[in-house]
Amino acid sequence: MKIAIDAMGGDNAPKEIVIGAQKAVEAFSDLEILLVGDEKQIQSFLTTKERINILHTEEQILATDEPVRAVRRKKTASMVLGATEVKEARADAFISAGNTGALMATGLFVVGRMEGIDRPALAPTLPTIGGEGFLLLDVGANVDAKPENLVQYAMMGSIYSEKVRGVAKPRVGLLNIGTEEKKGNELTKKTFELLQNTDIHFIGNVEARDLLDGVCDVAVTDGFTGNMILKTVEGTAMSMFKMIKAELMSSFTSKMAAAVLKPNLKQIKNKLDYSEYGGAALFGLNAPVIKAHGSSDSQAIFSAIRQTREFVQSGVVAQIKDAME
Amino acid sequence: MKIAIDAMGGDNAPKEIVIGAQKAVEAFSDLEILLVGDEKQIQSFLTTKERINILHTEEQILATDEPVRAVRRKKTASMVLGATEVKEARADAFISAGNTGALMATGLFVVGRMEGIDRPALAPTLPTIGGEGFLLLDVGANVDAKPENLVQYAMMGSIYSEKVRGVAKPRVGLLNIGTEEKKGNELTKKTFELLQNTDIHFIGNVEARDLLDGVCDVAVTDGFTGNMILKTVEGTAMSMFKMIKAELMSSFTSKMAAAVLKPNLKQIKNKLDYSEYGGAALFGLNAPVIKAHGSSDSQAIFSAIRQTREFVQSGVVAQIKDAME
Repeated sequence: MKIAIDAMGGDNAPKEIVIGAQKAVEAFSDLEILLVGDEKQIQSFLTTKERINILHTEEQILATDEPVRAVRRKKTASMVLGATEVKEARADAFISAGNTGALMATGLFVVGRMEGIDRPALAPTLPTIGGEGFLLLDVGANVDAKPENLVQYAMMGSIYSEKVRGVAKPRVGLLNIGTEEKKGNELTKKTFELLQNTDIHFIGNVEARDLLDGVCDVAVTDGFTGNMILKTVEGTAMSMFKMIKAELMSSFTSKMAAAVLKPNLKQIKNKLDYSEYGGAALFGLNAPVIKAHGSSDSQAIFSAIRQTREFVQSGVVAQIKDAME
Repeated sequence: MKIAIDAMGGDNAPKEIVIGAQKAVEAFSDLEILLVGDEKQIQSFLTTKERINILHTEEQILATDEPVRAVRRKKTASMVLGATEVKEARADAFISAGNTGALMATGLFVVGRMEGIDRPALAPTLPTIGGEGFLLLDVGANVDAKPENLVQYAMMGSIYSEKVRGVAKPRVGLLNIGTEEKKGNELTKKTFELLQNTDIHFIGNVEARDLLDGVCDVAVTDGFTGNMILKTVEGTAMSMFKMIKAELMSSFTSKMAAAVLKPNLKQIKNKLDYSEYGGAALFGLNAPVIKAHGSSDSQAIFSAIRQTREFVQSGVVAQIKDAME
């Protein structure tokens, strides 16, 4: 199996990308990696060349670039060249921790949409208290979604959860403002009707407050709402950690107690850290494209590679294609 | 000033409502309260009758009732009778901790919409790390909003924040998937344009992850998204407290440290408890209608009454009416 990786994408590129890739090659003997980016910089962090190749380019898409324009103009950017490897079947999958909007555009323009899928979806796995996690989609590939799009997300999410995450009969929930059948806006009301007539294991409407408790395995929503939920979870958790830190530093005794609890608090932080769950998959493209978190360190890159490897092995893309016919 | 209160609404009615009302009457000498509900039950918790009157009714709207139908059929329910007092100017404001949907329907059908406002909005104040809080609207009064509705929310929220919450020149943000001007779905793109041409202090798009950090004083969004954000904040905070509790109980030493930190953790919980910030105002009606949290205890009811009193004193309803002309 060969995975192409954008070595220049993300806040810690290329160092953490290169180190993470090397870890993955050591861990999985069937894995070959193609690092796309500045050869000299990449080389400076490589300690082995076994099953690691470099595709050199000096151009890259920046976090601040306007996505669609950048993809169209920077034809030799590491992101574009990496995606081209997948498109032309020289690699099985592509990973980037770079500009999210640009990666979605690259997915659409370079890798291409799967037949039968109207709009791709960006799908991260989020943490739950129990540790099993749930898939949230879409978190922003398509901000003006139609009911038909959401039904396709449900289908793709269900197949992925079963095949890659090993969930038997994934419970698919529709994010809504209440659990009752008639609740919601026009989009969710129509989607609810459509989902009832599929063979997906649709458990009905779910509320955002129950997500981290593990109310479902796949939570379906439009890209605007999904993006809001993702960022609200992130923001609330971050704010709470800040508050906890401030409280714990407020007195001598609390500082002492905090020192004792440090490993416990670290444990909670890890549980909530969704980079531990790998990257966000872009569903509905002709090949696996994975968005790693922008702030990924080598461990997060390793997780994203491991997940991508399972993605490729599971043959999910082919299975979704079959299901669409 | 006379405030009518639904004594039968909420998980802890009538006991906590009655006790909270009595506290408020003791605290504010200009305050008269009308408790609407079962006289015998209310009497059993009253220790004084000074400036507290009872409007007796045995009918009530339940949490499980279908909102619109309940309001239409239960014509003598405590919620409907309380709102009628406001409608007929026998009270200055109305508070209920009961069924949210039913209260919104009561507001529309009984109290009536303000001229110039197309759709009312439900607006709670949420906590921020700094403690100043921010107004989020709409959180569910109107789930299929138009750009014009959002502009009206922005205006009402701005006036309220200035007059009731004492924020000079409130910073109004539009919730969006990114801060850049061209980001978002059709609704936010159009709303952004419209907001630029108002005299509101519009600070542009804001992201959900920055809300609890206090990025703005008023966060404007459609009722569907707002409801999701509200419940995601609630759910994430609750889940984190569960995780913290589980971690702290995991060993002898962590239990000891946790005992020391109990007041600190309680402090954080209080900070995040938005019932401390009073109720959620229903904006765009002809008179102040306040939704207290369903699980309100007497302290939360007291906060809601205090906030309602400030609402009435500030003359916000009249000011919004003026601004609409």
